[in-house]
Amino acid sequence: MFFASDNAGPAHPQIMQRVMEANEGYALPYGNDLLMDEVRAGIRTTFEAPDAEVFLVATGTAANALALASYCQPWQVIFCSEVSHIEEDECNAPEFFAGAAKLKLIATDDKMTPDALRAAIARRAPDDVHTAQRGPVSITQVTERGSVHGLEELRALTGVAKEFDLPVHMDGARFANAIVALGCSAADMTWRAGVDVVSFGGTKNGCMGVEAVVFFDPSKSWEFQLRRKRGAHLFSKHRYLSAQMAGYLQDDLWKKTAQLANDNCAHLAAGLRNKGAEFVHEPQANMIFTRFPVPVHHKLRDAGATYNLWSDDGDSVTARLVCDWSISRENIDRFLSHF
Amino acid sequence: MFFASDNAGPAHPQIMQRVMEANEGYALPYGNDLLMDEVRAGIRTTFEAPDAEVFLVATGTAANALALASYCQPWQVIFCSEVSHIEEDECNAPEFFAGAAKLKLIATDDKMTPDALRAAIARRAPDDVHTAQRGPVSITQVTERGSVHGLEELRALTGVAKEFDLPVHMDGARFANAIVALGCSAADMTWRAGVDVVSFGGTKNGCMGVEAVVFFDPSKSWEFQLRRKRGAHLFSKHRYLSAQMAGYLQDDLWKKTAQLANDNCAHLAAGLRNKGAEFVHEPQANMIFTRFPVPVHHKLRDAGATYNLWSDDGDSVTARLVCDWSISRENIDRFLSHF
Amino acid sequence: MFFASDNAGPAHPQIMQRVMEANEGYALPYGNDLLMDEVRAGIRTTFEAPDAEVFLVATGTAANALALASYCQPWQVIFCSEVSHIEEDECNAPEFFAGAAKLKLIATDDKMTPDALRAAIARRAPDDVHTAQRGPVSITQVTERGSVHGLEELRALTGVAKEFDLPVHMDGARFANAIVALGCSAADMTWRAGVDVVSFGGTKNGCMGVEAVVFFDPSKSWEFQLRRKRGAHLFSKHRYLSAQMAGYLQDDLWKKTAQLANDNCAHLAAGLRNKGAEFVHEPQANMIFTRFPVPVHHKLRDAGATYNLWSDDGDSVTARLVCDWSISRENIDRFLSHF
Amino acid sequence: MFFASDNAGPAHPQIMQRVMEANEGYALPYGNDLLMDEVRAGIRTTFEAPDAEVFLVATGTAANALALASYCQPWQVIFCSEVSHIEEDECNAPEFFAGAAKLKLIATDDKMTPDALRAAIARRAPDDVHTAQRGPVSITQVTERGSVHGLEELRALTGVAKEFDLPVHMDGARFANAIVALGCSAADMTWRAGVDVVSFGGTKNGCMGVEAVVFFDPSKSWEFQLRRKRGAHLFSKHRYLSAQMAGYLQDDLWKKTAQLANDNCAHLAAGLRNKGAEFVHEPQANMIFTRFPVPVHHKLRDAGATYNLWSDDGDSVTARLVCDWSISRENIDRFLSHF
Repeated sequence: MFFASDNAGPAHPQIMQRVMEANEGYALPYGNDLLMDEVRAGIRTTFEAPDAEVFLVATGTAANALALASYCQPWQVIFCSEVSHIEEDECNAPEFFAGAAKLKLIATDDKMTPDALRAAIARRAPDDVHTAQRGPVSITQVTERGSVHGLEELRALTGVAKEFDLPVHMDGARFANAIVALGCSAADMTWRAGVDVVSFGGTKNGCMGVEAVVFFDPSKSWEFQLRRKRGAHLFSKHRYLSAQMAGYLQDDLWKKTAQLANDNCAHLAAGLRNKGAEFVHEPQANMIFTRFPVPVHHKLRDAGATYNLWSDDGDSVTARLVCDWSISRENIDRFLSHF
Repeated sequence: MFFASDNAGPAHPQIMQRVMEANEGYALPYGNDLLMDEVRAGIRTTFEAPDAEVFLVATGTAANALALASYCQPWQVIFCSEVSHIEEDECNAPEFFAGAAKLKLIATDDKMTPDALRAAIARRAPDDVHTAQRGPVSITQVTERGSVHGLEELRALTGVAKEFDLPVHMDGARFANAIVALGCSAADMTWRAGVDVVSFGGTKNGCMGVEAVVFFDPSKSWEFQLRRKRGAHLFSKHRYLSAQMAGYLQDDLWKKTAQLANDNCAHLAAGLRNKGAEFVHEPQANMIFTRFPVPVHHKLRDAGATYNLWSDDGDSVTARLVCDWSISRENIDRFLSHF
Repeated sequence: MFFASDNAGPAHPQIMQRVMEANEGYALPYGNDLLMDEVRAGIRTTFEAPDAEVFLVATGTAANALALASYCQPWQVIFCSEVSHIEEDECNAPEFFAGAAKLKLIATDDKMTPDALRAAIARRAPDDVHTAQRGPVSITQVTERGSVHGLEELRALTGVAKEFDLPVHMDGARFANAIVALGCSAADMTWRAGVDVVSFGGTKNGCMGVEAVVFFDPSKSWEFQLRRKRGAHLFSKHRYLSAQMAGYLQDDLWKKTAQLANDNCAHLAAGLRNKGAEFVHEPQANMIFTRFPVPVHHKLRDAGATYNLWSDDGDSVTARLVCDWSISRENIDRFLSHF
Repeated sequence: MFFASDNAGPAHPQIMQRVMEANEGYALPYGNDLLMDEVRAGIRTTFEAPDAEVFLVATGTAANALALASYCQPWQVIFCSEVSHIEEDECNAPEFFAGAAKLKLIATDDKMTPDALRAAIARRAPDDVHTAQRGPVSITQVTERGSVHGLEELRALTGVAKEFDLPVHMDGARFANAIVALGCSAADMTWRAGVDVVSFGGTKNGCMGVEAVVFFDPSKSWEFQLRRKRGAHLFSKHRYLSAQMAGYLQDDLWKKTAQLANDNCAHLAAGLRNKGAEFVHEPQANMIFTRFPVPVHHKLRDAGATYNLWSDDGDSVTARLVCDWSISRENIDRFLSHF
């Protein structure tokens, strides 16, 4: 009954299979392996972006921090939500990689609104040398609260960025879960919606540890490669990153595992709803924020259930429950049985 | 006939086996997996250092840069050889992680001499605010030229550092190859020889991508963990790093693969010597710098041999040849047959 | 009728006199001038802090950024108010000098409350490697809204910091104006109130450009000197900084100029009150935030008055009016005559 | 008998006069003062560069570090001589401001040779992601050894930079002394010779503390202003920097003080030559490296002479003697009388 995160489950067999197969003979290091060609082609096809530049790193924080740094000067700010992963859970990595830039937080408990974003951008005068300058906008899809921006919502946010000629980054740690939830294409949710660079997450969705940074503007390619090496994120035996991503893309595995995770979550949500649990945010992908009585919490903990406790007011707790692709219906039902 | 680097061969089956076995059920993320307990215990036993703190990262540059940063203030210099990997091949990563510190190069074509190191340290007045201050000493073992510091040589260098109360880092990307060459213990080559922190390399010696940073001074533990996270080098699905390192330590696999690599190299060196090739540095581990005529170079290239061309004066070339654990005697003999 | 800032008026004649006198013969550079001995002794006497370490820089941003960096690791946050100068007006300088640390903003339109500060600190778990860690608290006295923390208010804030064992920085760009407003001693408002390091401002209060960074913990001395040099803020002809600060301390000039500024401001505030202007914050030192009708604004601008326009809702404007020591009563009365 | 540096003498009366005159009434802060218009025009005329952008800072290290940072990415190297001030005497400030870039030292005891510079640049492959990339070339004029690059020497060095399309910075801490020594124009020694940005020093040559950064490529203007503010080097009461520089440019005072310094040095050098002292470098501007017997050294020290001791081999010492504009012939002759 492990609902603490989608980074604790196993990798999908198809991923492991590709990694094992990749372990044959010699392969050029540092991203020059042949498998990377397959990955590049696969991403370009998936995103309908023949000129996209694609790079692999092993952690989501690396993907976000390096992608943002490519679009942010040290005297600029990155606009993001107050609850964003880059603000809350990356121990100043974005600031570090962006040369001591600032994160400018848009107050929200989930999604930024276009108006709040516009106001935050507008009040930073672009000709005032005292003010840290306007920089990129970062949007998390699925959000850190389990919500999914609809395509219109996305376009509204990127539209605000474009009003000010600012680049847009998407933190897609759960990119696949959003795609599956929306039923749209990867292109629709990125460059067609005004996104310039996306961290296309694999780790949380069935890989061992791989994320693709996809630039729709290929002019960033060489700078990114230098930033990646300087950040110590260029793998010598790169083939093992490539193999994971190749397996992830193969036959759209990434959508299948996301569908499994989202379905698991929907099953859990339906069960919780049945039991009368409240939702802090309406579950849309593979993450639930729900409130239930403290005694239930104790029963669940005693039974070995694992999840993040968000708050506890004495009467009830708020818990974050995340489903990955691998959790069994049995485990979910067992979890529900304690309510 | 791949002699370009030891980062291009496959991982050892025992490593892959452990990775596959690790891919079962849930595991706590971010280094809290149970396998990491095995790794920690294994490293402590291997290094006879029950208080050592052990952390895993996926690249050698990360291991070096994070370890050095833990011992270097931004207004200090890192003393290292002119040919060190941290200077030549890490695209300013050490400077980046150490907050814009400086690398102070000791002129040499291979090892630093104690006198040259002492002179470089001594001339930086510790009370002169204009001068970047004295910081850690970094020693590469095996060196970037394939040489191995003997234990007395090591102690002489670390002794100079200790004269000035400076910490010592060992870049052990090829640590195992040195241990096998010297026939000494890991403790002898590190803390008993005055080393404070070592990058214990796995990647080049049969792993997919894992390096252990081993601190003999456990007080650095928490700072290192924060630096690792901030550097985006903390793996969520950390078990796959642990599994590699666990497999690497199991039954001293790390020594076996290094022995294979060194033996392969000795076989190659003996063959080259037979053929009359000159050595720029006397081969001691798994890397050879050798000079041979340009026509031989052309024959080798035509036959598909891969190696790094160090220089070409028109008559003869200098080549770097590296053997990993996996290269076959047949391939080596085939290579030699072109001389 | 210049009310835009207290950084636009002339330096006090006593300051200029000391600078001219200092311009004789040779003086040791880089802070080793004899005048610096006078400054050091003067500050120690003024602050009743015989062990304090004192350093001069030429800008307030340098004083703040260097002082904070001395107490902040790159993976920490600096707690400060949402309207603080270090957040709003220093173009990421604090982040830059602190090695890419983060500013954590306490929501407020003026002073931080102890509860808000405590909540912000408490929610950052000190053992969570994902979260940027707790770092120093920075308090501006006089605040950026012209308010003065009373001694109890100060002690309440520093008390919260001490609950968590965090250091406290005071941005004292208008330190003198606060001292005069409170009628307390420099010691009362700093180390006796729990402040560890203060930027003791001279520039806005009658100097050409000099700020003292005063450490009550002398152990920070050498690190600060290295940080100052590395930040390019160590003056070779340091005597001209020393001379300004010596003149500033001489016969408590710093209190006299601050008294002049505060009196000017009180005169202006009384006049505005008479005219029916509203105050956004109750004026306590030398800065006023006031609201008046748009037609009055136009008259004032036409008459050549200079001040910062904070907002304009069509009917009325909010203006920031700052009085320095040098503004004449005639000018103030002329300004008031347009209401 | 003060020969330790040209940063220990007084400012020229004409400078002080302008500073005093500037101390009247209100002046717009942050470089918007009217005096800055005079400075800008004066620099443009002096350098025959009507489009040049001009900015003032207060220290030479700030001028160098900010100018270089404007032309250097964090993953690049700055090529400079082994004895350059930016390497030896700025406590990692260039690295800090350039975001952790590397200084790549050209071995020399004085000037870089074009061949050595070319070799250093050429060996950094521009397409190798492991190697820190080629960045700006920095030339010091007058050199740190008191030598002056002739115009052909300068053009040869900048020509090498241009072969590789690299920008060129001139550290002109003693710019005026070089101009006077060469008898050429400021344009000849900068943009006509291939220099892109120059630190035009005032501090060592009769100012209190001011340096102009002059960009011949005006496109760097806004970025530099942001870097200056972020580096805490933007003065609020900027008029006092402007006033110094205005006084420095007025009637070519800068050339007059440099002529005085060079003449003083020539007088000293002639005297030393008479006394049989050897020169380590042939004196060309206002700095001498000379060797004389230890007993003479003791006599000089006993008599109160102040200078930098470069080395002492027991028999003779090497001393650095610097003359500023203000030293009297009497003092020089008195110094010489001890030989």
